Amino acid sequence: MKPLKVNKRIILGPGPSSANPEVLKSLSNPILGYLDPEFFKILDDVRGSLKSLFRTNDNAFALSGSGSSGMEAGLTCLAERGDKVIICSYGYFCERQILMAERLELEVIPLRSEWGKQMDSSLLEEALKENPDTKLVVATHAETSTGVKQNIQELGKIVSKYDAMYMVDCVTSLAGTELLFDSWNIDFAYSGSQKCLASPPGLSPCALSNRAYEYIRNRTKKPSSWYLDLSLINDYWGKDHIPQYTVAVSSIYGLYESLRLLEEEGIEERWTRHVLNAEKLRKGLLELNINLPISEKDRLDQLTVVTKPDHIDDVEFRNRLINDYSIEIGRGLGDFEGKVFRIGLMGESCKSEYVDLILDVFKKEI
Amino acid sequence: MKPLKVNKRIILGPGPSSANPEVLKSLSNPILGYLDPEFFKILDDVRGSLKSLFRTNDNAFALSGSGSSGMEAGLTCLAERGDKVIICSYGYFCERQILMAERLELEVIPLRSEWGKQMDSSLLEEALKENPDTKLVVATHAETSTGVKQNIQELGKIVSKYDAMYMVDCVTSLAGTELLFDSWNIDFAYSGSQKCLASPPGLSPCALSNRAYEYIRNRTKKPSSWYLDLSLINDYWGKDHIPQYTVAVSSIYGLYESLRLLEEEGIEERWTRHVLNAEKLRKGLLELNINLPISEKDRLDQLTVVTKPDHIDDVEFRNRLINDYSIEIGRGLGDFEGKVFRIGLMGESCKSEYVDLILDVFKKEI
Repeated sequence: MKPLKVNKRIILGPGPSSANPEVLKSLSNPILGYLDPEFFKILDDVRGSLKSLFRTNDNAFALSGSGSSGMEAGLTCLAERGDKVIICSYGYFCERQILMAERLELEVIPLRSEWGKQMDSSLLEEALKENPDTKLVVATHAETSTGVKQNIQELGKIVSKYDAMYMVDCVTSLAGTELLFDSWNIDFAYSGSQKCLASPPGLSPCALSNRAYEYIRNRTKKPSSWYLDLSLINDYWGKDHIPQYTVAVSSIYGLYESLRLLEEEGIEERWTRHVLNAEKLRKGLLELNINLPISEKDRLDQLTVVTKPDHIDDVEFRNRLINDYSIEIGRGLGDFEGKVFRIGLMGESCKSEYVDLILDVFKKEI
Repeated sequence: MKPLKVNKRIILGPGPSSANPEVLKSLSNPILGYLDPEFFKILDDVRGSLKSLFRTNDNAFALSGSGSSGMEAGLTCLAERGDKVIICSYGYFCERQILMAERLELEVIPLRSEWGKQMDSSLLEEALKENPDTKLVVATHAETSTGVKQNIQELGKIVSKYDAMYMVDCVTSLAGTELLFDSWNIDFAYSGSQKCLASPPGLSPCALSNRAYEYIRNRTKKPSSWYLDLSLINDYWGKDHIPQYTVAVSSIYGLYESLRLLEEEGIEERWTRHVLNAEKLRKGLLELNINLPISEKDRLDQLTVVTKPDHIDDVEFRNRLINDYSIEIGRGLGDFEGKVFRIGLMGESCKSEYVDLILDVFKKEI
């Protein structure tokens, strides 16, 4: 094996995004033990900062795993085999939730609606009316496969009329758009470090309500997963730092730095940066006569879905961008496979100069 | 939050160990997408090198999670609810396997033997005779709580007379002592990146036999975990690179570098380094009249367990080492709590100069 050499890519896909250079530098700090008092200080700061970011007074932490580990942790911990779980599905990652829930033998009530559009919240209202004994409602804030934003606040109001808990996928939304955990009645939210937080992939930042924590602790049958048991993870991140497993120490250094940089920029200011660059991108794409299939009211700022022009070959075009420009953009998934490209402007990849660059390349190559 | 500043520790505990500076440096490389052809080249090299390290012609990869995620993945994938699983238990981490297996509702047959001694392999022979329909046998190569090495080859010979699969915990053994996956009849072995591999914590390097892979693929009921489904993970690391989740890209850079450095040193040479430094440590400790409770035939080289002298306060002593010398050593766990210290010499922490240092400190402070 030769010494590792990695060429810089401009990552404008659905994630991971490029990481901030300061964050990358911080990964090289010497290792501390996961029970070292000095490491606990770092953990405490990260927990506090995540609580501010999620806007919660309850609990926050990061799982040593990808965003999908957060997804599975929620489904494993917040419902038991045979429990009714309503999963709002309008994209590829919602379908992954269904797949996981089925493996866990939950009684899944899939609430499927058209890909590329916000789900009508009355669908949830009806489903809960029919199934008032639902244990858990799951929704996705920013569907990375379709570029659609869901109204999580509105769904949360509906859930709060029932006894169910409310779990939200914030993988692509956290730090990129408004998210208010406590006031939107969320019980569990999970995200990924590698998107709007400008950190490398490998951690799943999460928030957990006190109610959900107590529910997990008091389950007579423990969650089938020990590694993803959110109550044990919360106990390690809590003030007593009860040991569970050896966490990804270096990745947590990176998360610390990315949260520090976020505080420096300001959370609202980062949301605004995502809005402004997305607006600039969309304007430029429309000027190039490229079609944006998602309606203005439904679309995300972090991820813009564009219709692939008929004369362009999907795979060949994306390979050309990689090989000739060292730019990565995303392909369509599921119902959108072969029909769209996905351009992500998240975290460190959310820069005005990158918007100029990708518009230039599209102008030349399409 | 202030910019992150981490002071260097000399980590001589049960793990994580210090990471190699070259490995730490490699973490700062720019992010590549997890489906980027350039990243696939890195994955392919890591897979090949892990196969050499495990001594297998079948499959190897790394989970994006701690060693415990590897433990849970094996238990989740290689047996189904109600299946008989024999777990050889002679320490804290064996008990964790039992705990996980119980959560998964496997029919656990715990084979408990005295902590601090190798388990007599005839125990397994008898248990299998009584339970020839056992689906899986689990053993731990290097029990980090007791400093005892188990004869994995001998147990493997017994397992091979039956139809059961054979799963081995190699968290503390991999790259520190001889391990021959194929010729010892192992079906699944999991380790951690943060011990004898001199990488940061966050990955679980694993090997999987073709037989076990086929078993998982052909299960009529899929494993309850999607995140830890070893067949899906193997498919992502295999030649078709079928997407599953976003892996911990930076950590995989670190693993690449740590495997490259291992090849440079030589695998056998690294085993020998662990032997020589452990011998020097034990000799020095005996000269200081410190008792080594584990017999010569059973003990590990990576981790030396010493009896805590009566006049020494456990917590106060370890805190003094941290505060006055910036040295971390381990505490006793389970049956050994408050009775022993654990001194690890693994990977980057396995250095002659550190042996001198810890002996000096013991001389002064005990």
